[in-house]
Amino acid sequence: MKFNTTNPSGFPEFSPVHEPIRQHWLQIIRQTYNRYGYQTIETPLVERQENLLGKGGNAKEMYVLKRLLDDEADKSHSGNALRFDQTVPLALYIARHRNEITFPFKRQAVGPVFRGERAQKGRFRQFDQCDIDIIGQEDLPLAYDAEVVAVVVDIFKAFNIGKFVVRINNRKILVGFMQSLGITEDQIKPVLDIIDDLEKLPPTKIKAAFAEQNISDSVAEKILRFVTIDMKKTEALETLKTLTDHPLFQAGIAELTTVIKHLKSFQIEDEYYVIDLKIARGLDYYTGTVYETRLTHNPEFGSVCGGGRYDDLASVFTGKKFPGVGISIGLTRLLSQSIETGLVQNKKSSPSQVILLPIETQFETIAIELSQKIRQQGLANEILFGEQKFAKKMKYAEKIGAPFVIILGEDEVKAGKFLLKNMQTGNQSLQAMNDIAGCIETLTNIQ
Amino acid sequence: MKFNTTNPSGFPEFSPVHEPIRQHWLQIIRQTYNRYGYQTIETPLVERQENLLGKGGNAKEMYVLKRLLDDEADKSHSGNALRFDQTVPLALYIARHRNEITFPFKRQAVGPVFRGERAQKGRFRQFDQCDIDIIGQEDLPLAYDAEVVAVVVDIFKAFNIGKFVVRINNRKILVGFMQSLGITEDQIKPVLDIIDDLEKLPPTKIKAAFAEQNISDSVAEKILRFVTIDMKKTEALETLKTLTDHPLFQAGIAELTTVIKHLKSFQIEDEYYVIDLKIARGLDYYTGTVYETRLTHNPEFGSVCGGGRYDDLASVFTGKKFPGVGISIGLTRLLSQSIETGLVQNKKSSPSQVILLPIETQFETIAIELSQKIRQQGLANEILFGEQKFAKKMKYAEKIGAPFVIILGEDEVKAGKFLLKNMQTGNQSLQAMNDIAGCIETLTNIQ
Repeated sequence: MKFNTTNPSGFPEFSPVHEPIRQHWLQIIRQTYNRYGYQTIETPLVERQENLLGKGGNAKEMYVLKRLLDDEADKSHSGNALRFDQTVPLALYIARHRNEITFPFKRQAVGPVFRGERAQKGRFRQFDQCDIDIIGQEDLPLAYDAEVVAVVVDIFKAFNIGKFVVRINNRKILVGFMQSLGITEDQIKPVLDIIDDLEKLPPTKIKAAFAEQNISDSVAEKILRFVTIDMKKTEALETLKTLTDHPLFQAGIAELTTVIKHLKSFQIEDEYYVIDLKIARGLDYYTGTVYETRLTHNPEFGSVCGGGRYDDLASVFTGKKFPGVGISIGLTRLLSQSIETGLVQNKKSSPSQVILLPIETQFETIAIELSQKIRQQGLANEILFGEQKFAKKMKYAEKIGAPFVIILGEDEVKAGKFLLKNMQTGNQSLQAMNDIAGCIETLTNIQ
Repeated sequence: MKFNTTNPSGFPEFSPVHEPIRQHWLQIIRQTYNRYGYQTIETPLVERQENLLGKGGNAKEMYVLKRLLDDEADKSHSGNALRFDQTVPLALYIARHRNEITFPFKRQAVGPVFRGERAQKGRFRQFDQCDIDIIGQEDLPLAYDAEVVAVVVDIFKAFNIGKFVVRINNRKILVGFMQSLGITEDQIKPVLDIIDDLEKLPPTKIKAAFAEQNISDSVAEKILRFVTIDMKKTEALETLKTLTDHPLFQAGIAELTTVIKHLKSFQIEDEYYVIDLKIARGLDYYTGTVYETRLTHNPEFGSVCGGGRYDDLASVFTGKKFPGVGISIGLTRLLSQSIETGLVQNKKSSPSQVILLPIETQFETIAIELSQKIRQQGLANEILFGEQKFAKKMKYAEKIGAPFVIILGEDEVKAGKFLLKNMQTGNQSLQAMNDIAGCIETLTNIQ
């Protein structure tokens, strides 16, 4: 039988030289989340389908599980589906563990989600979402809305893939302004979607979209002028405040002012964030602050990190109010785009700091002992076992990209020594087998 | 609508006090795998179902994906299934990337696998498998069979859940011995399964199982006597060698002798491994060394880590020979059992080393600045924002279990200071805001 061994369409994996970049990014994300005190929680990849549908799951994109050879007698296998985001599982986790959780609940979740979308370039059916959320009971201070921005900025600085800006808005400002113009309740969601599309669609299409919602040209014009106000100036929020005294609008301005004040306390440099009234975020559940992050020199990437505040995360499951704020990094898409665009370089595939090459198999025993000694100092290393020729052994060391090689040949072993070679500089030195302190120093000084 | 928010049967998650243990164990596993030079590779959770079936997948337990509201026109969603182990995906990864991989390929894979088993206590439908494998081209030295044992021993020592023993055997010894007794080719697999059950079933059932395979009492007796030979003595392998000159049997003895020699080079203490001729490992694909690890004081846990050598991992997909050896830790089951048995203790839920408590919200700004300074030193910390009473704030700090608390009250802030409290000893000291070196030292010295 001939097998088609390619991975299924939309279910990506990375090659041996790209996976190390992914691991490095995952480490940056997890470490930063930890530094701000977010606890890791992992929920199952599978939930009851009615719970996913109950919080906005799209039945057309939802993958349900079925056994290939199903035993009709065992009903416990049906009715389950793969999660499509990390937020609904968080709501369910809170419903399941609310008595064990200390609120405010700061949690991080890093892992795959699944969406049965049409297969096309850059669209994935399995992709990693890396989320943090803070969930309060009854209420949640706005300082947390600023904190998540600080986290995003730290992470994207560490990714080192160019300039980026977190664009911040508040839904109350948008919705309040629209209400002050007489936009009706059922027009609001479609208009938010139009605003979301402003940077993707040409002006004629935008105009047509407003017309389709029965919004007059003059009102559409007012909305467009509003959302494109330049908010970079210091006094911009003060000026905005005078536009209308609509209470929701004023509440939004007050919230955003508080968030910006806290952002300054976090000492985030001005270049990393901006108020942008065009940020609407299509999702229904946002009720206050909303964010989107873009790479300045790669606008074609779209939003690389989004999020916002929602007031009723788990209420449908618990009957209680659990307001939250959070952000999500779409790692798989960002990394794929960064590889394609050449923003990231291939990385060495091995975690080893040094590779030990016993030139003859009789030196393997002594190599193992040395290897264990180095490992006990916390240094990753490996031995290439077997009878290949020396040139082939060196080739292995070069290919997997270890920064150092230890060579154990007859002369060295007889003298109770080994040869330590820096693969980058070519420098090499003889080291005594019974005193590896010098070797460890060399290995750790040059990372 | 009333939702059933429990997690689906067989899809476990851990509570906020148990998930940190899981994270700690995952860290031990990944760090140890890294120290021996195993590169992380993550394959998709979903593969083509014919590829999974082609390498031993069980159709009754295999979960296939289907969209809840399926669009019949888009066939690209059908024919895919969730992986049931990490080994078949490894074979597929090699088929997909063999030209980019440097062999021997040392890879680690840590993540969930899925099996649609009957729901019962301790049986999971989603569980984490933490694997390492070394894959060679054409051949692979036996020293790697010893290396994976060294890795297992390092990990279980670090878990610190009591004594354990890696039991080692070689399939060639078992099969060669059986062939020397005239056991036929088609009897071998069933007899290996009987041997696997020796510790689970009573002697009468074992006897019946042999009879069912048309194996005479006297041959059954010989097999039972053979597999229960005490192999703890140093000369045991030498003695065993004299039993039969069957070539496969002799080849197995020679392999096992080499592996044991290498284990001694790895300086693994004798107490952590033993030759045990009863270890057969049901799976078809093992061809040489086989392992099982058990907890000495918790035999009811069964095998907590298994593995072995296989000669033709990817040949069905590639037409080439890729011999390998590997081990797998069943993390979810082991952790669940360890929690139930009380082998592990609840852990603090927060990664924060210190929690900052601004007593009034007006001190939040100064708390943020201090928090960022501490974070820049690499120390995880968090601020509890909001207007709660002081007692409630301290309660939060106690519950999430941070070792230190920083209190910012009016007196402290006025004097340019803050109060640093060790939550375990109760010791507290005033620290100057503009000189946090002393604070960092206190925070890092006591972990």
